[in-house]
Amino acid sequence: MAAVRVLVNGAPADTLSVADRGVAYGDGLFETIRFVHGLAPLWARHQQRLQDGCRRLGIPAPDAEQCLREAAAVSAGWDHAVVRITLTRGVGPRGYAPPASPQPTRIVAAFEAPAMHGDSYLQGIRVRWCETRLGLQPLLAGMKHLNRLEQVLARAEWSEAAIPEGLLLDLDGNVISATMANLFAVIDGTLVTPSVERCGVAGVARAEVLSARPDAQVTTLRPDQLQHAREVFLTSGVRGILPVQAVGDTVYGPGPVTRAMQRHWCGLGFPMEQA
Amino acid sequence: MAAVRVLVNGAPADTLSVADRGVAYGDGLFETIRFVHGLAPLWARHQQRLQDGCRRLGIPAPDAEQCLREAAAVSAGWDHAVVRITLTRGVGPRGYAPPASPQPTRIVAAFEAPAMHGDSYLQGIRVRWCETRLGLQPLLAGMKHLNRLEQVLARAEWSEAAIPEGLLLDLDGNVISATMANLFAVIDGTLVTPSVERCGVAGVARAEVLSARPDAQVTTLRPDQLQHAREVFLTSGVRGILPVQAVGDTVYGPGPVTRAMQRHWCGLGFPMEQA
Repeated sequence: MAAVRVLVNGAPADTLSVADRGVAYGDGLFETIRFVHGLAPLWARHQQRLQDGCRRLGIPAPDAEQCLREAAAVSAGWDHAVVRITLTRGVGPRGYAPPASPQPTRIVAAFEAPAMHGDSYLQGIRVRWCETRLGLQPLLAGMKHLNRLEQVLARAEWSEAAIPEGLLLDLDGNVISATMANLFAVIDGTLVTPSVERCGVAGVARAEVLSARPDAQVTTLRPDQLQHAREVFLTSGVRGILPVQAVGDTVYGPGPVTRAMQRHWCGLGFPMEQA
Repeated sequence: MAAVRVLVNGAPADTLSVADRGVAYGDGLFETIRFVHGLAPLWARHQQRLQDGCRRLGIPAPDAEQCLREAAAVSAGWDHAVVRITLTRGVGPRGYAPPASPQPTRIVAAFEAPAMHGDSYLQGIRVRWCETRLGLQPLLAGMKHLNRLEQVLARAEWSEAAIPEGLLLDLDGNVISATMANLFAVIDGTLVTPSVERCGVAGVARAEVLSARPDAQVTTLRPDQLQHAREVFLTSGVRGILPVQAVGDTVYGPGPVTRAMQRHWCGLGFPMEQA
């Protein structure tokens, strides 16, 4: 799963400056975008989030057409690819103060899409509770920025291959998301997903579900509420709609809401398997 | 103030892999170390913090002797230098899960020490209140890790050269620190500094002050308490002991506690000026 093709500011390269603010301070954003036969069904949502993040961080936004050309170039020839676009504030002098006229660094890298078993989509996946809790920071919440130590620490808690994901609470004990996916649940007949106003990432797949299901509610979600859900599923721009079979000892069955959203995903152009 | 000499894993280089987890996730730590005529008076404290951070993040700690040799090599010939040591979890596959056997990337870079006017040390500096608030995350608090977007956003709030620093509150409204320095105040005859258990960085200069003044108290500090302080000063491993002349409209005078700590700093081997 190593990156085999990378463009840095449009040119083939596999390195960047040690003085880049991306490595110095995590001063930047990224998107990981699923391509299927050369097309990225959620491209517009990825671009929207990237532009929003640039606006919030004060980083000049990249040209969307240029990003798409480069993403297509690095993923060309692969039926299933993941393209990571990383945008940093670029090289700068030492110190937190951003350069007055930043020259962002744009890294566009293609990876083979992760192999997922069909069973994951049919029967669902087992997930665990993480001990790592998400800190609260409304200024950064929702963005897919490069400050991801919380996710690294959470994902470092376990290594069993049979458990592909873990759920995260925030410091107040509310359920927020998985380490690399958002979470939806059907509770008392209502489709709900946690707010990402104080922590967490506003996933593009989450946005797609919210758009397809305007009756869904963005809310606070306590662990005991989740325990009584009829259905639980995870959403990821890369992996799609993943039914949750069990959270720890609590067992769920993929239900009609999950199945309908999986069909919606197929309709967007994502295959159900090898997703 | 550009880095003119850099070693990456011991070899002269000015780039690192785009697949480094330092840029992908801010997955690493750093130290900025003041060297005076080839010596770093706070070296042991920097090394201790780096080792502590490695333990907390699960990154193999670098060899301290090797770090010192490399720091001495890149700063050789400069009377006043700042050496930044950046340690990342190294190159890894895509995804938050840390490699089972990480090969850290060690970047050792020398910079000219920032020029500071003697006036800053004699009369003190003017600082402002930042609107950016520090989020709460005990798992990361205290460490000098590479997830520094909060400091970048805070430092981006102003550009007046006459105001070298800004003070940060946390989400609960407690005073924590400046953007790149810790804060001490003399209140009702007691030397106090905010706790960095939930956010903020445990500065090496802060540790030195706490060691020199075992009567100092680590506490919560409200803005209104700070307003009634007799003395306020900032501490930085790079810049030393900086009296605060004013926070916004509130004026302070450098007092005996600040002066005694400045003398202590000179005794460590730091010059008062060109600090």
